[in-house]
Amino acid sequence: MFVYEKKLQYPVKIKNCNPKLATIVISQYGGPDGELGASLRYLSQRYSMPYPELKGLLTDIGTEELGHLEMVGTIVHQLTRNLTDDQRKMDGFAQYFVDHTQSVYPQAAAGVPWSAAMMQVKGDPITDLAEDMGAEQKARTTYDNILRLSDDPDVNDVIKFLRAREVVHFQRFGEAMERLREKLNERNIYYINPALKG
Amino acid sequence: MFVYEKKLQYPVKIKNCNPKLATIVISQYGGPDGELGASLRYLSQRYSMPYPELKGLLTDIGTEELGHLEMVGTIVHQLTRNLTDDQRKMDGFAQYFVDHTQSVYPQAAAGVPWSAAMMQVKGDPITDLAEDMGAEQKARTTYDNILRLSDDPDVNDVIKFLRAREVVHFQRFGEAMERLREKLNERNIYYINPALKG
Amino acid sequence: MFVYEKKLQYPVKIKNCNPKLATIVISQYGGPDGELGASLRYLSQRYSMPYPELKGLLTDIGTEELGHLEMVGTIVHQLTRNLTDDQRKMDGFAQYFVDHTQSVYPQAAAGVPWSAAMMQVKGDPITDLAEDMGAEQKARTTYDNILRLSDDPDVNDVIKFLRAREVVHFQRFGEAMERLREKLNERNIYYINPALKG
Amino acid sequence: MFVYEKKLQYPVKIKNCNPKLATIVISQYGGPDGELGASLRYLSQRYSMPYPELKGLLTDIGTEELGHLEMVGTIVHQLTRNLTDDQRKMDGFAQYFVDHTQSVYPQAAAGVPWSAAMMQVKGDPITDLAEDMGAEQKARTTYDNILRLSDDPDVNDVIKFLRAREVVHFQRFGEAMERLREKLNERNIYYINPALKG
Amino acid sequence: MFVYEKKLQYPVKIKNCNPKLATIVISQYGGPDGELGASLRYLSQRYSMPYPELKGLLTDIGTEELGHLEMVGTIVHQLTRNLTDDQRKMDGFAQYFVDHTQSVYPQAAAGVPWSAAMMQVKGDPITDLAEDMGAEQKARTTYDNILRLSDDPDVNDVIKFLRAREVVHFQRFGEAMERLREKLNERNIYYINPALKG
Amino acid sequence: MFVYEKKLQYPVKIKNCNPKLATIVISQYGGPDGELGASLRYLSQRYSMPYPELKGLLTDIGTEELGHLEMVGTIVHQLTRNLTDDQRKMDGFAQYFVDHTQSVYPQAAAGVPWSAAMMQVKGDPITDLAEDMGAEQKARTTYDNILRLSDDPDVNDVIKFLRAREVVHFQRFGEAMERLREKLNERNIYYINPALKG
Repeated sequence: MFVYEKKLQYPVKIKNCNPKLATIVISQYGGPDGELGASLRYLSQRYSMPYPELKGLLTDIGTEELGHLEMVGTIVHQLTRNLTDDQRKMDGFAQYFVDHTQSVYPQAAAGVPWSAAMMQVKGDPITDLAEDMGAEQKARTTYDNILRLSDDPDVNDVIKFLRAREVVHFQRFGEAMERLREKLNERNIYYINPALKG
Repeated sequence: MFVYEKKLQYPVKIKNCNPKLATIVISQYGGPDGELGASLRYLSQRYSMPYPELKGLLTDIGTEELGHLEMVGTIVHQLTRNLTDDQRKMDGFAQYFVDHTQSVYPQAAAGVPWSAAMMQVKGDPITDLAEDMGAEQKARTTYDNILRLSDDPDVNDVIKFLRAREVVHFQRFGEAMERLREKLNERNIYYINPALKG
Repeated sequence: MFVYEKKLQYPVKIKNCNPKLATIVISQYGGPDGELGASLRYLSQRYSMPYPELKGLLTDIGTEELGHLEMVGTIVHQLTRNLTDDQRKMDGFAQYFVDHTQSVYPQAAAGVPWSAAMMQVKGDPITDLAEDMGAEQKARTTYDNILRLSDDPDVNDVIKFLRAREVVHFQRFGEAMERLREKLNERNIYYINPALKG
Repeated sequence: MFVYEKKLQYPVKIKNCNPKLATIVISQYGGPDGELGASLRYLSQRYSMPYPELKGLLTDIGTEELGHLEMVGTIVHQLTRNLTDDQRKMDGFAQYFVDHTQSVYPQAAAGVPWSAAMMQVKGDPITDLAEDMGAEQKARTTYDNILRLSDDPDVNDVIKFLRAREVVHFQRFGEAMERLREKLNERNIYYINPALKG
Repeated sequence: MFVYEKKLQYPVKIKNCNPKLATIVISQYGGPDGELGASLRYLSQRYSMPYPELKGLLTDIGTEELGHLEMVGTIVHQLTRNLTDDQRKMDGFAQYFVDHTQSVYPQAAAGVPWSAAMMQVKGDPITDLAEDMGAEQKARTTYDNILRLSDDPDVNDVIKFLRAREVVHFQRFGEAMERLREKLNERNIYYINPALKG
Repeated sequence: MFVYEKKLQYPVKIKNCNPKLATIVISQYGGPDGELGASLRYLSQRYSMPYPELKGLLTDIGTEELGHLEMVGTIVHQLTRNLTDDQRKMDGFAQYFVDHTQSVYPQAAAGVPWSAAMMQVKGDPITDLAEDMGAEQKARTTYDNILRLSDDPDVNDVIKFLRAREVVHFQRFGEAMERLREKLNERNIYYINPALKG
């Protein structure tokens, strides 16, 4: 079970409203490579992961990503909480506003609601780790792109923290993959499920 | 942020494998009215909820639902962890197995991946609470239906606990709605946004 | 069966083209809380509604919402029927135009096609009414938001009529819920399905 | 606007419950080529149809399809209204029951909720009629397939009526296409939009 | 099987970057009536097409559409390969950039990922050809609309080529339909599946 | 552009009809980790891949996967081309038959139409290769699972060929990743986009 601690993993303090930037950052809330997909992917994969230390790794990172989801939601909220009438009507944001007012809804920048079709839980330890390594690179690229699009130092400071965490996660999944490969079969260098090689 | 505690809110100990029952129970993991939607709905709505006690209520219930998600995932896992070859090939389950082996993936009983289109975050306090009351009744009905379909006492014991929690949540959201209505406008008995009544 | 009467429930006479406003109003045609979902939700729920007067209520309101769908479609049509070349190329509208020219397609403001995942038919009388009360509040909020975004008095006059109807429907569903609760069990104050309480 | 007449276009009287057949017939309620898509397609296309007689044709057929939607919903309801416990638990139906009890929800036989992605409104008269002719053939084939799968004479009698209506609609859209082609350009035999031929 | 030839069916040489135009043209890559759907529709339908010459026609056109998909992807790529910082941040494109950088992703102009729900494979020869005739008209209209929105002669030259090919395909499917009708039943003028007429 | 060669990459000769097995194998046609997603992923990624040898690799493997898509479609077709009435009515297959008769439609085993949401094109060379390595492992696991579910030696012989090709592709993408990493930055061992490291 989960316990909520009333603080963010890293502080979020955005001074300026910016609805357009909000429509971009929201992709890390509910977009194809965002934090919702990350946490749900890892927290779902752990049930069928046969090795306790890998199950623990998935639980740890999945729980941390729930905190990142909260941080990204906080950025979107702070970018939109005090809008003028003109900001509300800005093209791109008005289409969000009509359906969600000034709230935080799990969707991609382009407006598509998050779907579990954007992630996979495959039930094969090697495959799930390969999926996770890809997922971390995709999240890292989205943060790279936000930094290319945003000029707000308050936002960028948080995004850099989040990007750095994805790099650490990628590295940890990579190390786990190495240990798993050794465990399964020292000569199984192409990552074939050994139970079906015959 | 969230902290993981290595125990379930209520114990899950399923003795018998039953892949068909797993394909039904999974709807409360990733189906239209399941625990994923519940937790994400409440945890997303809190950003724009203007009253601290209601924000706190959404955080509390949203966090508890994350624990329910974990419990439902555990039921699905325990119902499928030790399958015979014949159980794996059972019609209905084989179509799940081919894409997810014996893992837990967020989908409805019918196989549709969970989508945020199944929930709403509207950014209006009265509306979000009305959405939540509807959500709790829908989850309650799904648990009712699982009890109508399942003969496994180990499963049913957990499902009854989860159903009872939904009833409590419905009641708490109902009480919150009453307090909110009074706060907004004592005569606003039809729940109209007072800012736009003119 | 349904008979078409060649008039609108309330007249729609928009003088000025406004493609941007059209991309916003269209959410009440095919968006998550729009009139398509409303009419289909009620007209689908009535089959399993066991009480004739509630079945009649669902049929009445569902049929009226079909007429609202027609009115919203008429607004979108009148806002886009005579566009200049420059209006057609406006950002936001051009992305609609390329796939639908100047027609009316059931999608949300953000461009997502309407999906039945956005509504529920649960087959439990109390739950279906709770779903409906939430739906009416969500539709009411969308109309509130259109009024916050639109400066066109011709559009706003119709939107205010439609919003007022949603408030009436909410009230009627609320009264039906009260009667149903009394009918099912006078002391069932938490809306539990009595057949499964044991 | 629409007026409801409390009778079906053609009587539906199913004597025997059959949940499996219900999961098949439901595809004409909310499946890819079903009556929901048909009515919504035609009723949406009429706004941009420039010729009054074709607009009238779309309104007529779209309204009739609403009545067919009601008939198909009635078949599904009658096939499932009085289920025994064992019928409720039948594989294939149990996965529907858990989320919708014994109600009628707009989904395909395979369980996918209806989506407007399954239809098109293109805003070009020739194209919309070509879409409609294709749609009628697809609906006709679905009815053919139901007749190949069903042994219930009560169901099949209604299905044959509905199939016959699709054939009539196909023919009427075909005649409309011929008149439209003549109107646009007598030598435009390949159906090119003449405004853009240069 | 397929062999790749390292040339385009028709040359694509776009001189000027134009991210906004890219967000429109991309609908023919992965939009509802684009080349991905076209090729996959025909290449999937051929398995169940009982007549060798029609199977061959579906294979030929389906393979050609794969080449058109490549041409449209090339247009999108050339319109976005060298963007300035300001172009990258343009509203409408920034929401694409954050998730896909300057790559080519199969989505509609409005941002919705391509889905097979947008096409049909019905397994009835007449129906599949009627679906195909509709599809060609829809693709033709999308190209018409791109020409109405684009001022870039380099883009328009390619679009006109592609539009002309759709008209040829429509004509070829129309001729195939005539031959098929004659083959099935000379008097079956309403395109009824003769196996089920009784 | 693509040229069709009228032969399969590897022969498919299925002697026995088996509609249930067809509903499982079809996931490699249009399921989340199937050949459609594979070919479209690689053929779409190549536009933004900056290195000619990697662009060539994506084109080669993407083209080969088009041939695998054809082989999987052929398996599904041969498993369903000659069904008895009873086979057609088998639960699980009947729900497919009603909408697609005996044809090949791009969907997952559970009935969900293929969606581009199931794949990503990220426009970052390292990320796209990480996505591809994950994709190959997911496809390999699906083939493993088909072998666990199928007893048909004719099917299994082809599946083993396809599985072996995925392993080769995984290896080739892994080698490409190594070369790319060296090229970008010899010390960039955690795969950070060097342009944004500061």
